[in-house]
Amino acid sequence: MVQKYGGSSVANAERIKRVAERIVAARKSGDEVVVVVSAMGDTTDELLDLAHQVSPLPPGREMDMLLTAGERISMSLVAMAIHNLGYEARSYTGSQAGVITTSAHGKARIIDVTPGRLRSALDEGAIAIVAGFQGVSQDTKDITTLGRGGSDTTAVALAAALNADVCEIYTDVDGIFSADPRIVPNARHISQITYEEMLELAACGAKVLHLRSVEYARRANLPIHVRSSYSDKSGTMVTGSMEDLPVEMALITGVAHDRSEAKITIVGVPDTPGFAAKIFETVAGAETNLDMIVQNVSTEGTGRTDISFTLPKTDGPTAMAALSRIQELVGFKGLLFDDHVGKVSLVGAGMRSHPGVAAKFFAALGEAGVNIEMISTSEIRVSVVCRDTDLDKAVLAVHEAFELGAETAAVVYGGTGR
Amino acid sequence: MVQKYGGSSVANAERIKRVAERIVAARKSGDEVVVVVSAMGDTTDELLDLAHQVSPLPPGREMDMLLTAGERISMSLVAMAIHNLGYEARSYTGSQAGVITTSAHGKARIIDVTPGRLRSALDEGAIAIVAGFQGVSQDTKDITTLGRGGSDTTAVALAAALNADVCEIYTDVDGIFSADPRIVPNARHISQITYEEMLELAACGAKVLHLRSVEYARRANLPIHVRSSYSDKSGTMVTGSMEDLPVEMALITGVAHDRSEAKITIVGVPDTPGFAAKIFETVAGAETNLDMIVQNVSTEGTGRTDISFTLPKTDGPTAMAALSRIQELVGFKGLLFDDHVGKVSLVGAGMRSHPGVAAKFFAALGEAGVNIEMISTSEIRVSVVCRDTDLDKAVLAVHEAFELGAETAAVVYGGTGR
Repeated sequence: MVQKYGGSSVANAERIKRVAERIVAARKSGDEVVVVVSAMGDTTDELLDLAHQVSPLPPGREMDMLLTAGERISMSLVAMAIHNLGYEARSYTGSQAGVITTSAHGKARIIDVTPGRLRSALDEGAIAIVAGFQGVSQDTKDITTLGRGGSDTTAVALAAALNADVCEIYTDVDGIFSADPRIVPNARHISQITYEEMLELAACGAKVLHLRSVEYARRANLPIHVRSSYSDKSGTMVTGSMEDLPVEMALITGVAHDRSEAKITIVGVPDTPGFAAKIFETVAGAETNLDMIVQNVSTEGTGRTDISFTLPKTDGPTAMAALSRIQELVGFKGLLFDDHVGKVSLVGAGMRSHPGVAAKFFAALGEAGVNIEMISTSEIRVSVVCRDTDLDKAVLAVHEAFELGAETAAVVYGGTGR
Repeated sequence: MVQKYGGSSVANAERIKRVAERIVAARKSGDEVVVVVSAMGDTTDELLDLAHQVSPLPPGREMDMLLTAGERISMSLVAMAIHNLGYEARSYTGSQAGVITTSAHGKARIIDVTPGRLRSALDEGAIAIVAGFQGVSQDTKDITTLGRGGSDTTAVALAAALNADVCEIYTDVDGIFSADPRIVPNARHISQITYEEMLELAACGAKVLHLRSVEYARRANLPIHVRSSYSDKSGTMVTGSMEDLPVEMALITGVAHDRSEAKITIVGVPDTPGFAAKIFETVAGAETNLDMIVQNVSTEGTGRTDISFTLPKTDGPTAMAALSRIQELVGFKGLLFDDHVGKVSLVGAGMRSHPGVAAKFFAALGEAGVNIEMISTSEIRVSVVCRDTDLDKAVLAVHEAFELGAETAAVVYGGTGR
């Protein structure tokens, strides 16, 4: 099996020793074990800080070289702790483990995995410890990173390449819940969820799994088990397709929310074919990821319209700068930047066959006094943008309206799921 | 040229930026520049501390994986700082730079250097930054380290492989002095020294250059320029053989001292052929490095003798444990461990043709009231072991007796040398 431990699970020597015990327990039970680790606690942030002390705009190649020191430290310490328990463990960098990527520094994508050295280590009875989040570029042979949260993707990719039965992702919660338990005390633990639902939840702000890792697992049809590194409880199994779901399945999986986005509004865009395209080409050229887009109906008689879209807050300055450079060319009137928005989303495979879900969702928000600013939907999701100050209220109201709660509070994990 | 910067030269962001300026200045003057860096300041000690929190006896392979994170951080930061000055710089791990070693973790030796990637970087006009102290094992492809101070050796090995004119070793002093200026205020700056003399000084406790790097440079006939990273003054050039020295050269180069050794005495060893060999086989088997050895004349009538030797203090516990295991077999009476000894050495190529040097050395120590416990000599060196509390007094007395002082104090570097 492949296990992945995040930064908080290996934040200090004590936790590393506890993780080592868990790994050895899996090995004792007869499994071949490959472990993927993130950097310890705040290491990545500390290294970023050092880089910015040295250079305001560090080159990507060197940034990746720097950041990959983080997993190098955690993985060798985990290997040492396992040795100490009498088991053979060997640590491998992404490059040594055969994680071959594109050369896009800071956001490389895995092209191939050639786990020959891991296979040999396993065949010799050793436990293999692998640095998450990193690989080596196929073209330049330079060290690359997969972007934040990339260790989940490393774990899934290795599990797929090694034909593992399951990829266990250890985190600080017991799995996926019907809503964030910090907002909804009786949020229900979900014991199983399809890839499609998990993708929607991850895209809508659920932090537990990295989006790309779920996409990778779906393609490889590899089950992901999300569980807590602090308990032995069973977590959430991400597996199976919506097509295979029984008819009597639950309508709704859960409510996700996201505070990390901002909204940009372009005011008074000439309502002429091609101008909207020009605007979104510009934003894409600035390498920002758009989420929701809304174009208002042209205000009568003016021949002009407003276009709003959401994007990660951190991409805001770049996008605003790029847009202001084309203001004269496109001839729009102004730009507004709003980083006090929040997004609440309802996700559920059953939504496909139940047309009333969206109406009930909007009604619940209306009754709670939440003003809806933007709407987007997919086959199994409906999302709205509202004021960030209304976000908790919105999550609670929707969770309650769809009766998603467990009978007991989330801290006493029922484990019933759907 | 190849430049090497030690840990204190890259201890923080400010110093890294200053080092970057110096590197860019060398590049501007038209030279191709390869830079070898150590880990920042106390990084190595902090990583060692982490390792010991996790495991009392970490495996060498994992220790090397851990420690090599240190140079990875410093080298990428140096490359970033150079970029910031408008020059192209690329950092390379020891493995990427082609530093091929034995597989002896923690004390690997360089077998070969295949600097293809460095050559390409230089050909493309880039400055290459290389992690010191590390390489990759020829057999196992595992990451190795060369042992403390190994970055000097990395720099010399790369300079030799790239046919550089000179290897500049930057440190926090202006070069080599006739004695430690902290003990002898008027110690004289040495502008040039032969490889042989530098080897003797390094072996006798002079910390400025790593012994193995001098051996490597001598084999490659590569000049080493030891200089300060805080000034533009010319430092000490290590070059040339004793054979090439002019006849009118100075008799004595300098006085070295060493506080890092301890003395073990084996009491009452049967004076029978083979027993001494057994003892030193045992110590060698414990992988300790012996320095001086003295066997007393057999005490009349007893058929027994005492054997004393010195070794690094840190190897003391291992050697004592190994020896006590053979006490019964060899039949000696007891073991003494003394870590309050010091060693003072006089080094000079001119010593070969001047038989009176040793006598004058012992006389100076006698007049200063220093009791001599052990003596060893080479063609160009004489060393004694004394009480550690007598060490400063001994260094001062010898330095004075041979009139090695500059007319001004060492802080106002005369730069005259010998």
